[in-house]
Amino acid sequence: MPQPVDVLVVGSVALDSVRTPAGERRDALGGSAAYFSMAAANYTAVRVVAVVGTDFPDAYSNLLRQRGVDLSGLKIEQGQTFRWEGVYSEDMNDRTTIRTDLNVFLDFHPDLPSSYLDSPCIFLANIDPSLQLEVLDQLDAPPMVVLDTMNYWITHKREQLLSVLRRVHVCLLNDAEARQLTGAENVLKAAEGIRMMGPNVVIIKRGEHGVLARSEHGWFALPAFPLEAAQDPTGAGDVFAGGLLGYLARSGGDLEEDHLRRGLAHGTAVASFACEQFSVSALTDLTLEKIERRVRQLRDLCHFDV
Amino acid sequence: MPQPVDVLVVGSVALDSVRTPAGERRDALGGSAAYFSMAAANYTAVRVVAVVGTDFPDAYSNLLRQRGVDLSGLKIEQGQTFRWEGVYSEDMNDRTTIRTDLNVFLDFHPDLPSSYLDSPCIFLANIDPSLQLEVLDQLDAPPMVVLDTMNYWITHKREQLLSVLRRVHVCLLNDAEARQLTGAENVLKAAEGIRMMGPNVVIIKRGEHGVLARSEHGWFALPAFPLEAAQDPTGAGDVFAGGLLGYLARSGGDLEEDHLRRGLAHGTAVASFACEQFSVSALTDLTLEKIERRVRQLRDLCHFDV
Repeated sequence: MPQPVDVLVVGSVALDSVRTPAGERRDALGGSAAYFSMAAANYTAVRVVAVVGTDFPDAYSNLLRQRGVDLSGLKIEQGQTFRWEGVYSEDMNDRTTIRTDLNVFLDFHPDLPSSYLDSPCIFLANIDPSLQLEVLDQLDAPPMVVLDTMNYWITHKREQLLSVLRRVHVCLLNDAEARQLTGAENVLKAAEGIRMMGPNVVIIKRGEHGVLARSEHGWFALPAFPLEAAQDPTGAGDVFAGGLLGYLARSGGDLEEDHLRRGLAHGTAVASFACEQFSVSALTDLTLEKIERRVRQLRDLCHFDV
Repeated sequence: MPQPVDVLVVGSVALDSVRTPAGERRDALGGSAAYFSMAAANYTAVRVVAVVGTDFPDAYSNLLRQRGVDLSGLKIEQGQTFRWEGVYSEDMNDRTTIRTDLNVFLDFHPDLPSSYLDSPCIFLANIDPSLQLEVLDQLDAPPMVVLDTMNYWITHKREQLLSVLRRVHVCLLNDAEARQLTGAENVLKAAEGIRMMGPNVVIIKRGEHGVLARSEHGWFALPAFPLEAAQDPTGAGDVFAGGLLGYLARSGGDLEEDHLRRGLAHGTAVASFACEQFSVSALTDLTLEKIERRVRQLRDLCHFDV
């Protein structure tokens, strides 16, 4: 068995206020780094680089620590924690942002503790590509860097984003973002175009429609795990990344095709759990055994003999 | 090996004028019954019940006959053939109807030749539920009836549609239609709600996102076959139905779970071929061998070991 390696995530830790057809939560634990960590911690040790304000509840720090998340890179700054407020549509496929208060995140610059500098698996969550570059500049060419991004950075920080892309191994984005980044209408052509920009693996996240991935071995596709009672899809993409990268790190941290496919199945499974409850609730008592059971269900879901 | 059984389709045969980002065709062979037949004919004998006008080109009738399609139920009426004209969006996920001229289809009533009355596998393509009922009334409770429908009939012919649903075994529709028919926002709950209305199997067609099916054995999901160069998605749903029902009819005409899953894979594969060219062009020289190769590619596409 390969030795598990650690995972480092740089992103946001936030207080989310969310309304969905299933209910409402205020100031719940949120942010890409929090969601990612809670998912990846099922597999291996996770290191966080992020910032919160002095108002950040101890209960949330303790929850992360209890799951084995290393918070030595979590800065606590004078002021308020990043807050996000949103409302989901009836079918939960759309959401409207009511409020985004960056607060202490506004002046955030990632500053890696020396104990983090040997991290082999890096998740650059969806933040300003300039900050993602600052992270990579502090590391010595780690063997696995996974990038998440969004439409805003593609439009407003294109040059910086292209610089990051040249230095990452895996890029995660959705259909519209892949098209926007490349100008290709066909999403397969878009994914191939992004591979020309640097990453060897491009993963198109499609929410309730699953995932489509392109590696040097070709295409891989998985449906999402069907959920009868989703409560809150917030953070599903970051949880997906946490399951994927957690699985890969636990398997030794390579991008071998078998590992990648199983990792994508794990990401799909963990994301499905996360959507079943608000915030990170479903992730607080998740176990690898429960995840593996759902991964087998996912395999059975799309199994047919020829 | 079980004996193949025949398939009967009742639907439209039309002349389509279509513009997509890949090009344009005028008065091409179209209509649900034509698309379905061209797909199902790869598997077994197909019987058509439809109507065309005196302007319907012999070349199209000959093409269908060459593929082994029985046209003794295709009426030729004085007047023009049903014509449809549409334009697709850049990503081909949306289309705008420019013109729909029902012409001879306006007064269409399905009239089954006596040689059709023993048909065991029936596809009720997307037409007025009143006409679908007329078909069922001429048959002696066939063991496999598959229904396609759309938002218009759900709104305007709800009672008749519910009567048809009580008499069918498989229902095909898309996410929005499933929600509309049941009032359930969650598509899984909607599919289960539709099963309560009659059909044992509910199949949610998701276009480029594949298919989700519910049978008494639970859920089955497949991604679509990824296409780098789709030219024309017109008729893809009917071709999908043709591959599915063709496969099932060839396998003896039952809904055994293994057959159903392989049938859905065949439908997915044939539909992917159809989208690669305009109208039914890709189906004119298709073979079962080519389809089976793509079914194996589809299996590999979503295969992972646990």
